Amino acid sequence: MIIMRNDATQEQIDQVIKGVKKYGLRVDVSKGRYKTIIGLIGDERKIPFDHFAALPGVKEAVGIEIRYKLISREYSRFAGEMVERRKIKVRNVEIGGDELIIIAGPCAVESKEQLFRIAEEVKKAGAHILRGGIFKPRSSVYSFQGLGGEGWEEAVGASQWLQKAGEMFDMPVVTEIRGEAQVDLVAEYADILQIGARNMYNQDLLAKVAKKKKPVLFKRHFGASIEEFLSFAEYIAAEGNKDIILCERGIIPIGKGKEYTRYTLDLASVPAIQKETYLPVFVDPSHATGRRDLIFNMSCASVAAGANGLMIEAHYNPAEALIDGPQALTPDELKDVIVACQEIKKLVVSREVKTKALENEKS
Amino acid sequence: MIIMRNDATQEQIDQVIKGVKKYGLRVDVSKGRYKTIIGLIGDERKIPFDHFAALPGVKEAVGIEIRYKLISREYSRFAGEMVERRKIKVRNVEIGGDELIIIAGPCAVESKEQLFRIAEEVKKAGAHILRGGIFKPRSSVYSFQGLGGEGWEEAVGASQWLQKAGEMFDMPVVTEIRGEAQVDLVAEYADILQIGARNMYNQDLLAKVAKKKKPVLFKRHFGASIEEFLSFAEYIAAEGNKDIILCERGIIPIGKGKEYTRYTLDLASVPAIQKETYLPVFVDPSHATGRRDLIFNMSCASVAAGANGLMIEAHYNPAEALIDGPQALTPDELKDVIVACQEIKKLVVSREVKTKALENEKS
Amino acid sequence: MIIMRNDATQEQIDQVIKGVKKYGLRVDVSKGRYKTIIGLIGDERKIPFDHFAALPGVKEAVGIEIRYKLISREYSRFAGEMVERRKIKVRNVEIGGDELIIIAGPCAVESKEQLFRIAEEVKKAGAHILRGGIFKPRSSVYSFQGLGGEGWEEAVGASQWLQKAGEMFDMPVVTEIRGEAQVDLVAEYADILQIGARNMYNQDLLAKVAKKKKPVLFKRHFGASIEEFLSFAEYIAAEGNKDIILCERGIIPIGKGKEYTRYTLDLASVPAIQKETYLPVFVDPSHATGRRDLIFNMSCASVAAGANGLMIEAHYNPAEALIDGPQALTPDELKDVIVACQEIKKLVVSREVKTKALENEKS
Amino acid sequence: MIIMRNDATQEQIDQVIKGVKKYGLRVDVSKGRYKTIIGLIGDERKIPFDHFAALPGVKEAVGIEIRYKLISREYSRFAGEMVERRKIKVRNVEIGGDELIIIAGPCAVESKEQLFRIAEEVKKAGAHILRGGIFKPRSSVYSFQGLGGEGWEEAVGASQWLQKAGEMFDMPVVTEIRGEAQVDLVAEYADILQIGARNMYNQDLLAKVAKKKKPVLFKRHFGASIEEFLSFAEYIAAEGNKDIILCERGIIPIGKGKEYTRYTLDLASVPAIQKETYLPVFVDPSHATGRRDLIFNMSCASVAAGANGLMIEAHYNPAEALIDGPQALTPDELKDVIVACQEIKKLVVSREVKTKALENEKS
Repeated sequence: MIIMRNDATQEQIDQVIKGVKKYGLRVDVSKGRYKTIIGLIGDERKIPFDHFAALPGVKEAVGIEIRYKLISREYSRFAGEMVERRKIKVRNVEIGGDELIIIAGPCAVESKEQLFRIAEEVKKAGAHILRGGIFKPRSSVYSFQGLGGEGWEEAVGASQWLQKAGEMFDMPVVTEIRGEAQVDLVAEYADILQIGARNMYNQDLLAKVAKKKKPVLFKRHFGASIEEFLSFAEYIAAEGNKDIILCERGIIPIGKGKEYTRYTLDLASVPAIQKETYLPVFVDPSHATGRRDLIFNMSCASVAAGANGLMIEAHYNPAEALIDGPQALTPDELKDVIVACQEIKKLVVSREVKTKALENEKS
Repeated sequence: MIIMRNDATQEQIDQVIKGVKKYGLRVDVSKGRYKTIIGLIGDERKIPFDHFAALPGVKEAVGIEIRYKLISREYSRFAGEMVERRKIKVRNVEIGGDELIIIAGPCAVESKEQLFRIAEEVKKAGAHILRGGIFKPRSSVYSFQGLGGEGWEEAVGASQWLQKAGEMFDMPVVTEIRGEAQVDLVAEYADILQIGARNMYNQDLLAKVAKKKKPVLFKRHFGASIEEFLSFAEYIAAEGNKDIILCERGIIPIGKGKEYTRYTLDLASVPAIQKETYLPVFVDPSHATGRRDLIFNMSCASVAAGANGLMIEAHYNPAEALIDGPQALTPDELKDVIVACQEIKKLVVSREVKTKALENEKS
Repeated sequence: MIIMRNDATQEQIDQVIKGVKKYGLRVDVSKGRYKTIIGLIGDERKIPFDHFAALPGVKEAVGIEIRYKLISREYSRFAGEMVERRKIKVRNVEIGGDELIIIAGPCAVESKEQLFRIAEEVKKAGAHILRGGIFKPRSSVYSFQGLGGEGWEEAVGASQWLQKAGEMFDMPVVTEIRGEAQVDLVAEYADILQIGARNMYNQDLLAKVAKKKKPVLFKRHFGASIEEFLSFAEYIAAEGNKDIILCERGIIPIGKGKEYTRYTLDLASVPAIQKETYLPVFVDPSHATGRRDLIFNMSCASVAAGANGLMIEAHYNPAEALIDGPQALTPDELKDVIVACQEIKKLVVSREVKTKALENEKS
Repeated sequence: MIIMRNDATQEQIDQVIKGVKKYGLRVDVSKGRYKTIIGLIGDERKIPFDHFAALPGVKEAVGIEIRYKLISREYSRFAGEMVERRKIKVRNVEIGGDELIIIAGPCAVESKEQLFRIAEEVKKAGAHILRGGIFKPRSSVYSFQGLGGEGWEEAVGASQWLQKAGEMFDMPVVTEIRGEAQVDLVAEYADILQIGARNMYNQDLLAKVAKKKKPVLFKRHFGASIEEFLSFAEYIAAEGNKDIILCERGIIPIGKGKEYTRYTLDLASVPAIQKETYLPVFVDPSHATGRRDLIFNMSCASVAAGANGLMIEAHYNPAEALIDGPQALTPDELKDVIVACQEIKKLVVSREVKTKALENEKS
């Protein structure tokens, strides 16, 4: 990280940037009110910081140990203007603000009729964003892999339905990109690009998706620590795309003997991550629990923990869903969840407001 | 399990019990309105069920696979009167009802003055039960082990202070029993006997504590599955003591790299356990997160998930606590938590009432 | 799975295959001495097995639950000729036979000189296959990502060096493919294509790599169960490529407190996997332990557990390696390991021979 | 830790010890050839090290961060005589030397006849120490808990059989102590006192067992890190008993999906622990894998990893064992394992000899 003086000229800044690039690194420039920070992206060990510290206009030049500085609240503070919360606008939905945002829809798009019916119903239930899987990651090559697994034509068709359903019911749409070959197609039709848990460590896919400059819904791998999760989110930010929605979806359960939830929902990760980064954090209670009868409670708990939004699977008839039926809610159940969660969100927000007022008073 | 007919006489019941005991097993007799169930405690494989099925007054005699039947809601249903929720009365506090119960106090009792001051303050903040560790389990033999580690006299003294503080501020008191030699002492002074996470698998301690017939606060081991947790709770119930308060306190975090919470709080275990058993479930966000700045959120989340109560460490001056200072709340912070959690509890309870009304309507 | 009768004609077989394809599935045909088995690849739930069972020439038509049938020893037995061990020939090296195969080389290719010098030295030490990373998966975007991270030209150059080093010192070469865009390049120059632990769940990459019809070195993810590992290996086999070398490289350690190894090497997975599948199993003690001082012991232990080969990082000067220096062996140390492991391999093989002789005697 | 000068008098040493005790700590005095070290047991934070550093005869007075200093090789070095390996003599068996030591016998003592027959057969197969469980820790209160669970008389009887079987077949005997009330009984009859995995964290039991001054076989909990394991071994050493045999028996497996081994045997912990401490390390492949067909391989692997001994369950008829039959070996299979492991042990020892000779040459 190279911090420029208040009075550094653009020329001086450009000179530093040019110097950094000579060493094979890229830069992320944050111009704050009081100072300009040049973040270094790449292997910082190549940089002779002493040399840069001596250049005109440079106030400080230091290596930073943290693995995720571009998405860090702490780091944003150096620029003179700390980013508390990043708000991401997708069509007319604002993610990361005071409103609780609900992503809902079928696990997998199965037909135009199925998708449109669910879209209509989740919209009525109060959802803001429509989900629907086209390329489904599966543990077995013998399972249904989404319409994307049936052929390219089917994938294009399903993508178009998704786009149209979003338009018809006035919701931005999100769907998963499972492999690099799907990036262009999905980015053409979807508003938000999802990277699933199994691909969290797939840095090549992350970079390729990030370059589309659309918001990315980024899920935590079930075997990843929080630090790893944020370090890989940084791969997206390093491509100049900070519109990242982080999503907790459960980690591998511990212990011997029968498990009662599919994964272990790590809800303390929500406030813990929010203290590290300014990015919004969502929770997916459907995949985490794998149990429809736990989703009401765990949705409420997620919001109480501070989640900015929820991602919930819904189906008018969960029993006939081709994938993950046992964890899908009916539209009525979804509405029930949304109403309760919005009440809790109000409590949480009003308390945040009070806390901040107290802090301001003190300082 | 042996189910007696409606019209079985006491004599017939006694004959069956006598028969079971001959095989070296103990019994748990549940007399419901419509039938009497004789639960078998011990190695069921020794029992010739066919022989018992043929005895007069016996309706059914079957082995049960489930590892925790005495504490199971499902099993209680066989007796004709399903136990939905067990309410545990300790002095004037009712655990397991509609009210959120707060256990608060110092991690360790350090002095009479410290304890009394904290007791007074947590009472004012809204706590119902006073905690204070005397025998502290520690990962290092070189750490402070509580006053109980200083000598027997100190242990007795601290136990008496605890009892007196409870009386003075009108709160039942709970403290941990770490080893079998401490059972008599602690049971003399404390209202609720705690078995810590590290002793969850210690079946000899469980049996010895259970026999005291006082409510037991039973914590989940950080490496235990939910099934294991309940299977070991069954060791307590098997001694005829069903006043068990289960407590989730976090499991071992997963992943490589820096962790941001001490343990991973498994909040989905709360409703999952409540569907298996009628026992109340508490959450200890202090030990789970190890971070004071996450306790507000995680307390709210616990209650939203359905917790019957919380166990929170408090200290008038966390910085000077001998153990776990970084996770203790000040009394003011505690009050803040209690107020918010009570609002959420009200939401949760009113929704439960509505759901049950709907269910009754349908049936 | 559809099993044809002994006397089924080619025409009848073709009719069944055509029928299966109509349902959108692919087939894997195994012609054994006594019968022909048509394995189904895809969503078996679409197949009306009763219909197929009634076709001429069909002996049996059944769905199979197992998630990895193509690589299963059990499944191969149905074809009348059980595959005990698959031998994979790469240039003049036979993997999966009685000889212990050593893959060695630098973690990352850093320069032509470094690569050639290490290649020469590991060859002398007794290695059979040369490794060298070009596209390095890294937990931080700020770490050196291999020469492949410097630019495409550098990636091509490094690939060519690797090929030439292999030719000069008469060793097949293996390097990792980290993303789909690298498949064509790497497949042009390398003899064995590696899929790293972080990409184990990346089914799109697996399929694309498999299609190159070159042997695949497939590493287990650090959060994957054995069943998951084999289920994803099946994605490779489902593309018609059964030349898969499985590689155990350690799973996430458990417990709180300081860890003494980077990962936990799951050596019991070696014989456990060998009982499930006929594929060769390698072990990478370098990444698993992350400690040079444990590699001798853990290499010996791997071979004693039954490993078909080892993958070991080596460097003439571990201290100056750009990545993972602390776990690299010097060529002298490598030789020491190879000599000891070959002795143990001899013990293991001679015992297997004896056991098999005894079994044959009995039957 | 307080290091006394070469020329410190006994009086000066006594004065320091007295001073330490005044602060409520205990001491562990190591008199080396060149200096005397006074190790502090208890909460070191109470000690004013500056004050002690100024006492006559004191060379250095420093707090030590390490949680296990009494069992540490590093720490033993300070005393001027580094303990490389501690040899523990039990009757005529030496544990921790160059010979591989085999503990074998039934999982549970079921009858005198069963025990004596197995004892005779494992002796013939080459075992050195006889095992047999009397108090069995079980996950379910409904499972057979060993003869100790049938009543005290049965427990005494079984203990006496064990002692006699050991005498008759000339083997020291080991059995588990599951609770504090069993310490006196077991210590009267057994030569080695076992603390099972589930009790690893049970510091009160550890202290009570340690005081018997008999060798302790101490098993790692399945959820414990290596550091935790050693930190709790230190509880035993802190009672003045350093005759501790550490035993790896598998940790909780990771991942979703079917598991093929009961636990994950962490074999790299063997050499990792041996570099930290001078205590002998055993491996129990029976409990770790839970699979008889993996025990041969995993025993060989354990020895190759450096294990000082193995603990293996054996039964003349595994199918009729009351507990853990599926993992017991027949005496013939046991012999097969012992013969192969002894060959590997010879390889390992001869290499250690060579390495040490080389090191001595250099220095």
